[in-house]
Amino acid sequence: MKFATYVHQGKESVGLVDAEAERIYRVDAADMVELIARFDEIAPAIRMNGNGADLAEVRLLAPIPRPRRNIFCVGKNYRDHAREFANSGYEAGAVKGAEIDDYPAVFTKPGTCVVGPGDTVDTHPRVTSSVDYEVELTIVIGKGGRDISRAEAHKHIFGYTIINDVTARDRQKNHRQWFLGKALDTFCPMGPWITTADEVDAENLQVKTWVNGELRQDANTRDLIFDIPGLIETISAGTTLEAGDLIATGTPAGVGLGFSPPKFLKAGDNVTMSISGIGTLSNPFA
Amino acid sequence: MKFATYVHQGKESVGLVDAEAERIYRVDAADMVELIARFDEIAPAIRMNGNGADLAEVRLLAPIPRPRRNIFCVGKNYRDHAREFANSGYEAGAVKGAEIDDYPAVFTKPGTCVVGPGDTVDTHPRVTSSVDYEVELTIVIGKGGRDISRAEAHKHIFGYTIINDVTARDRQKNHRQWFLGKALDTFCPMGPWITTADEVDAENLQVKTWVNGELRQDANTRDLIFDIPGLIETISAGTTLEAGDLIATGTPAGVGLGFSPPKFLKAGDNVTMSISGIGTLSNPFA
Repeated sequence: MKFATYVHQGKESVGLVDAEAERIYRVDAADMVELIARFDEIAPAIRMNGNGADLAEVRLLAPIPRPRRNIFCVGKNYRDHAREFANSGYEAGAVKGAEIDDYPAVFTKPGTCVVGPGDTVDTHPRVTSSVDYEVELTIVIGKGGRDISRAEAHKHIFGYTIINDVTARDRQKNHRQWFLGKALDTFCPMGPWITTADEVDAENLQVKTWVNGELRQDANTRDLIFDIPGLIETISAGTTLEAGDLIATGTPAGVGLGFSPPKFLKAGDNVTMSISGIGTLSNPFA
Repeated sequence: MKFATYVHQGKESVGLVDAEAERIYRVDAADMVELIARFDEIAPAIRMNGNGADLAEVRLLAPIPRPRRNIFCVGKNYRDHAREFANSGYEAGAVKGAEIDDYPAVFTKPGTCVVGPGDTVDTHPRVTSSVDYEVELTIVIGKGGRDISRAEAHKHIFGYTIINDVTARDRQKNHRQWFLGKALDTFCPMGPWITTADEVDAENLQVKTWVNGELRQDANTRDLIFDIPGLIETISAGTTLEAGDLIATGTPAGVGLGFSPPKFLKAGDNVTMSISGIGTLSNPFA
C-alpha cells in the first residue's frame, strides 16, 4: 500500500494511493503519524472506495509534513560516494585511504525543513554558495522500540519514502559536524508518499536523480555499506525509536561535489528523484 | 523570574518559582512552550499569590520535558576543553595545533532523552563503557526568527537553564559525527528551571560540576569561544528558530575524558551541576 498526506478542497488528510489508477482515497486518521502508530487498528477499515479523488485534483504534501523530532540521517553509506566526498575537498578531516568508515556516521535534520513534492527549495544565497542534492531511501519506523536486533529490525519498519538530503557543502565542511549544513529551511523535500514495507525489496531498489533532466545519480540499495537492519540495530542501541521516526539511509555517488568543477544547484534548477517501487519526487530550486 | 514545570498532587503545571522562599505559584499556561510563545500576553497575570506550594512538596520536571525538536548543541566552545578533548584520544580526526575550530561545531540531542532534576540517568552498560558529563549553559529561545543578527540576538532569548550533555565517548568517537554518542535515552538532564534573561549577565556566569562531591568543572561563561549572540546568528542563518528551542552552549574543561586515566561515570555516581543565577541540577546515575 501507498499512503500520502494531501490537501483536497482545502482539507488536509491522509489517503491510500492507487498509483496505477492515479486515485487517492481518504483514510480515517488524524495524520500520518497516527495512522502509523495505530495501523493495526485502522487498517481493516481502509478501502479503495468512497471519498476518492484523482491525484491530479489534490496537492500532495510531504507524507510526514512535520516529524515529531529531527530526521535521523546516515552519511557516507555507499563506497563510490564516500570516495567522491573525501576527494572533493568538502569533507573536514578526510584521510586518504580511509574513505570508508568502520561505523556509520549519523546526524540529523530538523523536521522544520521538510517540504513536499513540487515545493520550492530555497538556495539561501546569503548563507551558502554550494547547495547540493542527495537522493536517499528513507525508512519510516512503525512499531517503536529500543535495542532492536538485526533479526527483529523488519518488524519495526512501516515503509519507505524518498528524501532529498539537500546540503550546503560549505557549512557542512566549515562546521565539521554536518548538522548546520543540512538544517536550512526547505532543505528536506520528502515524498511522494510512503510505500509499505511488504511492497518492496528494500535491499534491491534503483535510486536515481536527474538535475534539469540530466541523470546524475543511478545506484542500487544493494550497495549500502551499512544495511537497513544494521542501521536500525545501531541507531536503536540505547535510543528508543518511535512510530513515525525517519531514517535516511545515505546517498550514492553522483552528487554535485563529485564533479570537477563541482555542479552545485542554482535558482531555476529542477531536481527529480526516483526510487523503484516508491515513486518520483521533483522540486524546483529558487 | 524563574519558571519551572512541576507535578503537584498528580497534576503537571508550569509555575513561577520564588527560589528564596522556596515556593512555586501555578501559571495559567498549558505548558512551558506555550508560556514562552505567548509570554507577552500571559505575563501581566503572573503573580506570587494563590495556587502556591512549597518547592519541597512538588516534583520538578525538566522545564521543557519534551522539546518539539532536537536540542541544538555546541561542541568545543571553551579553549581548555577543546584541548583536553583533542588530547584525550576520543576526538575523531583531532589535529595537533588545530584544537580550536574556526567555526562552531553544532550537533543535536533528541528531545526524547530529556529527564528532570533528580531523575536517574541510565549508564547503558550494554551500549557504552565511557559515559561522561558536560555542564552547559543553555539558551531558551523566546521569539522565533531567522537570519538573526548579533545585535538583535538578545531580543530572541527568553532565558537560560542548565543541561548535562551526557555523552558516550566511545560512540562519539567511533561514529565521527557525534549524534549517536549524545542521543541515548535519559542522556539529557535539564533544569532545575528557566531563569529569564533579564535576571542574569549570561556572559559572566560561573559554571560548575561535582561528581560524588568532588569539584570537576569550574569555569566562567566569559570564556566561551563563540559567544551567545554569535551562536544565535550562526544557527539562525537560514534556519528558523522557534519559541522553546534550546541551544546548549558547550562545556568547559574538567570532563571525565580529560583525566588520565579517564574518570567515566558508573552506576551509583551522583552528578551535581550549578550555574550562578540559575540554580542546581543533580542526578544519580544507575
